[in-house]
Amino acid sequence: MDLNVDMGESFGRYKLGNDGEVMRYITSANVACGFHAGDPLVMHETVRLAREYGVAVGAHTGLEDRRGFGRRRVEITPEELKSDTLYQLGALDAFLKVNGMKMQHVKPHGILYRMVSDDEKYALAYLEAVKSYNPALYIFVPRGTLIWQFGKEMGLKMAAEILVDLSYDDNGNWVLERTKKAWSPDEVAERAVMVARDKKISTVSGKLIDAEADTICCHGDSPNAAEVVKRIREEFERLNIPLQKLGEV
Amino acid sequence: MDLNVDMGESFGRYKLGNDGEVMRYITSANVACGFHAGDPLVMHETVRLAREYGVAVGAHTGLEDRRGFGRRRVEITPEELKSDTLYQLGALDAFLKVNGMKMQHVKPHGILYRMVSDDEKYALAYLEAVKSYNPALYIFVPRGTLIWQFGKEMGLKMAAEILVDLSYDDNGNWVLERTKKAWSPDEVAERAVMVARDKKISTVSGKLIDAEADTICCHGDSPNAAEVVKRIREEFERLNIPLQKLGEV
Amino acid sequence: MDLNVDMGESFGRYKLGNDGEVMRYITSANVACGFHAGDPLVMHETVRLAREYGVAVGAHTGLEDRRGFGRRRVEITPEELKSDTLYQLGALDAFLKVNGMKMQHVKPHGILYRMVSDDEKYALAYLEAVKSYNPALYIFVPRGTLIWQFGKEMGLKMAAEILVDLSYDDNGNWVLERTKKAWSPDEVAERAVMVARDKKISTVSGKLIDAEADTICCHGDSPNAAEVVKRIREEFERLNIPLQKLGEV
Amino acid sequence: MDLNVDMGESFGRYKLGNDGEVMRYITSANVACGFHAGDPLVMHETVRLAREYGVAVGAHTGLEDRRGFGRRRVEITPEELKSDTLYQLGALDAFLKVNGMKMQHVKPHGILYRMVSDDEKYALAYLEAVKSYNPALYIFVPRGTLIWQFGKEMGLKMAAEILVDLSYDDNGNWVLERTKKAWSPDEVAERAVMVARDKKISTVSGKLIDAEADTICCHGDSPNAAEVVKRIREEFERLNIPLQKLGEV
Repeated sequence: MDLNVDMGESFGRYKLGNDGEVMRYITSANVACGFHAGDPLVMHETVRLAREYGVAVGAHTGLEDRRGFGRRRVEITPEELKSDTLYQLGALDAFLKVNGMKMQHVKPHGILYRMVSDDEKYALAYLEAVKSYNPALYIFVPRGTLIWQFGKEMGLKMAAEILVDLSYDDNGNWVLERTKKAWSPDEVAERAVMVARDKKISTVSGKLIDAEADTICCHGDSPNAAEVVKRIREEFERLNIPLQKLGEV
Repeated sequence: MDLNVDMGESFGRYKLGNDGEVMRYITSANVACGFHAGDPLVMHETVRLAREYGVAVGAHTGLEDRRGFGRRRVEITPEELKSDTLYQLGALDAFLKVNGMKMQHVKPHGILYRMVSDDEKYALAYLEAVKSYNPALYIFVPRGTLIWQFGKEMGLKMAAEILVDLSYDDNGNWVLERTKKAWSPDEVAERAVMVARDKKISTVSGKLIDAEADTICCHGDSPNAAEVVKRIREEFERLNIPLQKLGEV
Repeated sequence: MDLNVDMGESFGRYKLGNDGEVMRYITSANVACGFHAGDPLVMHETVRLAREYGVAVGAHTGLEDRRGFGRRRVEITPEELKSDTLYQLGALDAFLKVNGMKMQHVKPHGILYRMVSDDEKYALAYLEAVKSYNPALYIFVPRGTLIWQFGKEMGLKMAAEILVDLSYDDNGNWVLERTKKAWSPDEVAERAVMVARDKKISTVSGKLIDAEADTICCHGDSPNAAEVVKRIREEFERLNIPLQKLGEV
Repeated sequence: MDLNVDMGESFGRYKLGNDGEVMRYITSANVACGFHAGDPLVMHETVRLAREYGVAVGAHTGLEDRRGFGRRRVEITPEELKSDTLYQLGALDAFLKVNGMKMQHVKPHGILYRMVSDDEKYALAYLEAVKSYNPALYIFVPRGTLIWQFGKEMGLKMAAEILVDLSYDDNGNWVLERTKKAWSPDEVAERAVMVARDKKISTVSGKLIDAEADTICCHGDSPNAAEVVKRIREEFERLNIPLQKLGEV
């Protein structure tokens, strides 16, 4: 199982997340590319940090809306999405190249995660951008979405993602709660184990549903993010469940 | 002799230059990378246009200051300059990659052209960024500047540039006139020929000074840019002076 | 009848419209406030120009999206719309204050014009912002929209606007044609006269429908904008239809 | 003595400072105006918070450089500085107006504090902007600087400021130490008392020099900012030194 967290979301004087600590426990880092968060200096430092800890790097591409942190839907054209995605992929690749690294994956951020999941024109634009740029990249999205299906048909390397610190409804869709539930590290670790070992996740109604994943995600901007990923790693080690980058699986 | 012009300086609704026409007559395009001008969609279209006309593409990297068009000095750190340069190089490379093209050169834009020419810390930061990213890139700067000398010592491919539609003083420095002289296409073509054939340029005082160049530049945002580059090409063809990309020389 | 045009849409090096010429013929200027277009220097110059020609000034408030020119829908919150509107109103008022002028009106730009027309939460947020800031401001919107009705109920000074260089359908809604019809100055002037004198406008199907307006609008970014407004003014003078600011009616 | 702190420096998802706590202990808030920090929503909330605690509000105007937090020198023109300052003053005034408040003061932020202190063209542009907009505003700058002298000559209300959590050299200039000294709340409170009661401040060499101030400033973005201002207020109350807004002195 791969464990990914959003990294490099700081911007100039503004610090977000505890990347130096979180990076010690994860296998894949989704690095913001300067559109919804991050800036070139932050990207450079984040890539160096990932190299130091042997963490695989992916492009966390987003809408060009720093004030909204990429969480406000913007009605861009598919052609804009394609160009903006290519731009971000290339920008991140520059830092990987000078550090002797290869990009492992790509993941749409925030509202873009939903836009490419639900809206055919955005799903196709996103996939075409990735395919034309580098078809070897893993694409992190929820299993069963539009983009998942199109990507499979196009022969791309779709990697099913479960967000273990979000709640799911009985249909397998994650739900954004008004007041974000403060999961304890133990709870999240337990949910992560359940996904990795049993291919199940519990829902808000208490049911257990199927949850087949290639990668699990925790949010890096929660106050106890470092503690959570540390707890997951400890629990996986205790149970002998391997945590490894996708290329190594 | 190579003939380069700034391209892709439009931004969203704002159009600048007559790229579709100018591209027909030049050999190298300096494409803005979204910092001082341009945006991902404009970059994509400009790269496609360059491919259509067989024009070589370079990164016209600039300060992150769209309102000032990269012409206002900003006291960034060398580390910021390095990261910002890598970011822009990578971003442009994405569009080249999906169009099956290779980047030919890099050129600092606006006030950054001066900053890397005169200031050691910026010259070194810029060269280190280019060297670590792709040492095969030509670097367009004025001959004899700090960056020229450092780049030569580092074994980089420095390409001497003459701006044929700017005035020069007797020391070989270009001068920015308060009211920009409106050169006629014939005058610029004549100056271009003098550089290419005689390795000379006339100064504001009327003297002829040495001017050895690998590439000559005209500004793309002047109203008659297309006419000027057309006239240069015609004049070079008439005199049998080849216009060709740097890689072909 | 008041005649309004969008002004001050330039941004740094990027020039848009022919404000110096158009300003001679209009009665009200909608000045961009630095969110979708314009910048502080452009605003200052535009306000000075309006003063010179005795033109009334209004705030052309927009979404914070320069690249999209305020034409891409962004799902902001009503609270964001309220704050962003207040911010823009205050910013423009500073330039009016130092020029001894008063703001006459406010007009939502681009996609925001639609968002406040159709969506209750945005209509109310916009009206509340204007009311709390300065209830004496005229609000330019289409008659009969949600914001028109709410504004009337709140006792605000709603001013019905007709866009005489756009096409209307038989229900009185303007239609955005794929390829923008290039109206001749004569045609637009004739439509303007019909609205002012006969309270009618012709539709795409050829019908004449009721069109009661307090102000008519032409677009300032069309290539022949100056010619169009000049033609309107001449035609109104010939027919003795007064063109005057709203406060003077 | 007036006690001012920088407020409203958050931006979208990025939080900076502990405004809700700091506001309880100060008399004047310098509110960022969306150029170097802050955004309209943050400004609105900060003004409401100031009203709740009876704190006077001033405009903390800065360079348009969010990534650099207004700390990187940008070579703008005096005319740009004037327009940008007016824009920010007006924007903040909108939020004060709808909250029934009046602006008390203005203070240049970051590198702009130095630019207007040392450079005649910027000093004059800044003063002219403030004078034309509202000559009743207090202007917070160091005593004895160029802007101080020009402002006095122009009859403006210059308020001398001492930064009690920065070090001063024997000439009365504050020095930016490479590793920012972590002052204890007790130390800062002691320095504040010394300025208010004795009109003295101790320098890095250990000398006591004259330090006449109308207002003292602590930085709001240090981790213990709330503790520091609380300690100052307690100490002033213990010693019966009144802390009050400038208008009340």
